[in-house]
Amino acid sequence: MIRILIKNATILTMNINRDIIKNGAIAINENRILDVGSTSEIEKKYSADKIIDAQKKIVLPGLINTHTHLSMTLLRGYADDMPLKQWLEEKIWPLEQHLTAEDCYIGALLGCLEMIKSGTTCFADMYYHLENVARAVEQSGLRADLCYPLLELGDPNRGEKLLGVGTQAIKSLYGMANDRIHCSFGPHATNTCSAGLLQKVKKLADELKVNIHIHVSETKGEFEQFKTQYGKTPVEYLQDLNFLGANVLAAHCVWLSDNDIKLLKETNTKVAHNPTSNMKLASGIAPVPKLLASGVTVGLGTDSCASNNNLDMFGEMKMAALAHKVNSLDPTLMPAQKVLEMATINGAKVLGLKNEIGSIEPNKKADLIIVNASKPNWTPLFNPYSNLVYSAHGDDVETVIVNGEILMENRRVETISEQKIIEEAQKKADDLVKRSKLGGK
Amino acid sequence: MIRILIKNATILTMNINRDIIKNGAIAINENRILDVGSTSEIEKKYSADKIIDAQKKIVLPGLINTHTHLSMTLLRGYADDMPLKQWLEEKIWPLEQHLTAEDCYIGALLGCLEMIKSGTTCFADMYYHLENVARAVEQSGLRADLCYPLLELGDPNRGEKLLGVGTQAIKSLYGMANDRIHCSFGPHATNTCSAGLLQKVKKLADELKVNIHIHVSETKGEFEQFKTQYGKTPVEYLQDLNFLGANVLAAHCVWLSDNDIKLLKETNTKVAHNPTSNMKLASGIAPVPKLLASGVTVGLGTDSCASNNNLDMFGEMKMAALAHKVNSLDPTLMPAQKVLEMATINGAKVLGLKNEIGSIEPNKKADLIIVNASKPNWTPLFNPYSNLVYSAHGDDVETVIVNGEILMENRRVETISEQKIIEEAQKKADDLVKRSKLGGK
Repeated sequence: MIRILIKNATILTMNINRDIIKNGAIAINENRILDVGSTSEIEKKYSADKIIDAQKKIVLPGLINTHTHLSMTLLRGYADDMPLKQWLEEKIWPLEQHLTAEDCYIGALLGCLEMIKSGTTCFADMYYHLENVARAVEQSGLRADLCYPLLELGDPNRGEKLLGVGTQAIKSLYGMANDRIHCSFGPHATNTCSAGLLQKVKKLADELKVNIHIHVSETKGEFEQFKTQYGKTPVEYLQDLNFLGANVLAAHCVWLSDNDIKLLKETNTKVAHNPTSNMKLASGIAPVPKLLASGVTVGLGTDSCASNNNLDMFGEMKMAALAHKVNSLDPTLMPAQKVLEMATINGAKVLGLKNEIGSIEPNKKADLIIVNASKPNWTPLFNPYSNLVYSAHGDDVETVIVNGEILMENRRVETISEQKIIEEAQKKADDLVKRSKLGGK
Repeated sequence: MIRILIKNATILTMNINRDIIKNGAIAINENRILDVGSTSEIEKKYSADKIIDAQKKIVLPGLINTHTHLSMTLLRGYADDMPLKQWLEEKIWPLEQHLTAEDCYIGALLGCLEMIKSGTTCFADMYYHLENVARAVEQSGLRADLCYPLLELGDPNRGEKLLGVGTQAIKSLYGMANDRIHCSFGPHATNTCSAGLLQKVKKLADELKVNIHIHVSETKGEFEQFKTQYGKTPVEYLQDLNFLGANVLAAHCVWLSDNDIKLLKETNTKVAHNPTSNMKLASGIAPVPKLLASGVTVGLGTDSCASNNNLDMFGEMKMAALAHKVNSLDPTLMPAQKVLEMATINGAKVLGLKNEIGSIEPNKKADLIIVNASKPNWTPLFNPYSNLVYSAHGDDVETVIVNGEILMENRRVETISEQKIIEEAQKKADDLVKRSKLGGK
């Protein structure tokens, strides 16, 4: 008796051949995909505790959000449409000073809820009170790679202390929740950490065999500052520190020289592309078509709700497809299938999990979503890739399975209480602003 | 006894002061808004057949889509990610040749369904078999300004004949469905109609007191062609024909000189901005911040589902906000409230309906939507404009009222059959492709 059998589905496997199985079925046992094939074949082979009829539905790998700061979901819509420096220095950072551990927990729970409801099954996060983010992830049933932000800000003692916190978090949390939670190092950015700290982090990450999650060349200001100050770009600077490598997740990479792209490729450094955040903060449009053409592995991310302002990876896919077409005046760039690859199998590669998630194949972890393809915005259905990227949004996701567990079925979240989290989050957000004495926008 | 009383709502009036009424109520009698105020005050004054409790909900004017080709909803996802010329000449135009009147009806019904489900209450449309589009609009309960496309294509006889069809459509359909349906002239574009036809259209439109809906300077190719061929831009060309004016809806206007912007302002010509379509087809990013700064009235449109690929005005708002921020590297451009103005009151102005719709004020037609603000992507709620533009999508719309009639309540469409339309549309789309012998993508 296996755990779950999904049948009568159109399955976008996202395997190496990008096979699409019509009238397909998936057998899930424990936390892994046991078998994938035609419904008639799979139905004959297995009997299951739970059968899900996915007639007129699309099944695809759960979406992977490679860059966010989940607890900041509590700051959604608090401040927008402002110059970046003013937004950070007068709104976001002062408010963050008042965030308690409990705020971070509720913010993370709210983010987990929104991700489940919009089909994201795994994410890479950087934020404070990491143990509380982990608690939210554990309860929600999602999969995540979490890191604590090392914001050294010119103070080596602070850097050393935070590195201790980050290392301790990795040691105590990595592998928890049935291995759904991984941890990595989070040196915040090239311009907020010293060269010394970055080198220490790199050494420790290699020793502990964990990833490094860092903001790289997000703004023109940062890019120009490095060229002026060091005579090199942020990416060249990292390369000269021997920092780049296959376990490095470089978020943003908006401003890159051709040599930077070459270095990212040569070192097999991974990139998290956040088109919505980069557009909303007016940072720029990352040269993703060039990165992909050079063979760099690029995943997709929403960044935090303070700069997006949601966690809907469907919106992010559409933004990724459109931003690059118009930026190059070439409508053939970033076709739908390639964009979905970024949100699934490439996201898995970015997190070092390509053998575990990102496609629907036997032996992979059972992380998948079922999308309702009988809604007005899904009609007609000529091409599932096209409808997923250009017409769909998060609310079209009906059922979410992570690690073989059903987190949402027919839009009802099973693991955490939607109503309670929404009420609690609004209350915590109101209290936070009141306490901070900063006032609303 | 009035028809409907909505109470306990947060009302974004979009009136001249952009008043937001907390704990507000709206009294609707027949097809108009009778009164707007605090819940306690309005409840005392009126008793209603139907009371809608909008606690924790946002009420705002129905969204206005100022440029689409509704029947093309049947072509959603048929072809994407192709060079514009090849996409049009090998896919879209050949398939359109096979569209029957019935296809246009079903396509329009599907579009109406999707618009209702995503909070659009009024739209400007250009398409063939206009009487069938009108039939769909009538049945759905929506409001629209429809025009028949005059594609002269260098053949004056064809132009003359189509002008007759267009004029006849206006005369027979204008004002139908309790004045929910208006009609206008639809000279397709500056480069598909002769100067003579454009002048005839202009004269007739002025005589009949109707609008003109035309594609203007959508692509760089068109802009350059006019400069080479006539020594002037498409807008200058139209001005020299005395074509521009307050009743002209110029869709796209992606490629504009500073003088073009001046001419659009001086003539009070209206602009429909379609950021998603312009990005997807890689046409470019229209200079909307400049247009707005110059005082040109700009509405928002989705264009057709062949180039978007949905009709969700929430997505369009987000795209409009983000595209211009990144295009100018200025995050303060196109703030949320300004974008919502484009989708409501400015849309009404674009259609010449500013005294009838676009805001929630006494004596205006009762066209409004109720949005569920207690969803994860709406939490917390600091600023309703911000959440509407940056976090929301069409599925957050719960109830839609047009002309005082409830078209959707709690996401159940009351006027047309969702299930039947979805099934019929898929069938018609499949038949169309089969009949055309063009095959899928």
